[in-house]
Amino acid sequence: MAEKKKTTIVLFSGDYDKVMAAYIIANGAAAYDHEVTIFHTFWGLNALRKDEPITVKKGFLEKMFGKMMPKGAEKMAISNMNMAGMGPKMIKKVMKKHNVMPVSELIDMAKMQDVKLVACQMTVDLLGFDQSEIMDGVEFAGVAAYLADAEDGNVNLFI
Amino acid sequence: MAEKKKTTIVLFSGDYDKVMAAYIIANGAAAYDHEVTIFHTFWGLNALRKDEPITVKKGFLEKMFGKMMPKGAEKMAISNMNMAGMGPKMIKKVMKKHNVMPVSELIDMAKMQDVKLVACQMTVDLLGFDQSEIMDGVEFAGVAAYLADAEDGNVNLFI
Amino acid sequence: MAEKKKTTIVLFSGDYDKVMAAYIIANGAAAYDHEVTIFHTFWGLNALRKDEPITVKKGFLEKMFGKMMPKGAEKMAISNMNMAGMGPKMIKKVMKKHNVMPVSELIDMAKMQDVKLVACQMTVDLLGFDQSEIMDGVEFAGVAAYLADAEDGNVNLFI
Repeated sequence: MAEKKKTTIVLFSGDYDKVMAAYIIANGAAAYDHEVTIFHTFWGLNALRKDEPITVKKGFLEKMFGKMMPKGAEKMAISNMNMAGMGPKMIKKVMKKHNVMPVSELIDMAKMQDVKLVACQMTVDLLGFDQSEIMDGVEFAGVAAYLADAEDGNVNLFI
Repeated sequence: MAEKKKTTIVLFSGDYDKVMAAYIIANGAAAYDHEVTIFHTFWGLNALRKDEPITVKKGFLEKMFGKMMPKGAEKMAISNMNMAGMGPKMIKKVMKKHNVMPVSELIDMAKMQDVKLVACQMTVDLLGFDQSEIMDGVEFAGVAAYLADAEDGNVNLFI
Repeated sequence: MAEKKKTTIVLFSGDYDKVMAAYIIANGAAAYDHEVTIFHTFWGLNALRKDEPITVKKGFLEKMFGKMMPKGAEKMAISNMNMAGMGPKMIKKVMKKHNVMPVSELIDMAKMQDVKLVACQMTVDLLGFDQSEIMDGVEFAGVAAYLADAEDGNVNLFI
């Protein structure tokens, strides 16, 4: 039997449109029976934040990072024509019109298709997150785990 | 006979400098006899827009997108030191001085070298383009076509 | 004996956080015994600039580029939440707290691990650099050399 093809994405960006592109490729690859991993690092980690108040003791900088960064993909800005938040609203409007799923649903779909969602542990530490602030079903790992997936990969992307 | 090597680029960005990097790599790979595909999605699609007035009936949002986004690569901003449009002028000046082709010519060269230029159909729909607004010789396809090219690829990049 | 795995990164970005991601992946891959190349192009070239005054005769535009762009990674801005320079300071503070190396040390580590650092010759010409302004131990090459490394690569990324 042939081995499964592998798609491994480093999601570095915290822009709504780039996160959307990452999850569309990931869901497509999973539908084509690839083994898919998304490794969320730096600002991409925000896509995995729970959108609810969670009480964790934090230092000043960590509290500030937590407040300033978006809680989940739907709160993100877009990389281009953001126009103080009008851009994301316009994009979401045309997405609805054309039956394109919002990113939060693309993430749910990825989970259902067994896409492996990984949170970069170094980023979790740097930005002062507690694991309880990250959505369920996410693994925590480092660059070694990423490389183990990527080095046998067919499609490797940095987004 | 050995199979041809494959280079497949997702061009997501609509920044002049990133589009330039994508087309330089694509033309280089084609010169080395790779089979090359550039899949233009989101803002990268603007590189393929015709720079002429085209009359298409559109809704309000679509008309607005059409007006605000650049018509072709030469109208794009750069990702860094754009300085209200002075940056692109400075870059183009030094490019001319060092005999580096402008992006519009890099695109022509890519076509002559049979680089496959693909426009992401979902983006065409989302941003409200009509196929008549996209330059000739471009294919329209979705993520499945991208994956079919990328999964056997040697060089896969997301730009 | 099995051939070495290969990781080849195009570093296009001149943002501190993206350069950091590139060098963390590169150092990780080198530790796992990959043959690693970082090809510095466009703004990514600034990561290799010496941070000392160097006297080179230049034209007006080249002088201006030289003055406006950061001299080495530690002078770079971050891609998100830069806040007029406060962001990099905050990030560096939490990096220190969590024993994450600053990028300048990640570059030193990469050199010690024999990561091949390449400066894109076209960018050197375009931005008007003299080779004496680039740190020692760096090779100068073009897209052909990049492709020769990348086409047999296991992990190819554009950052």
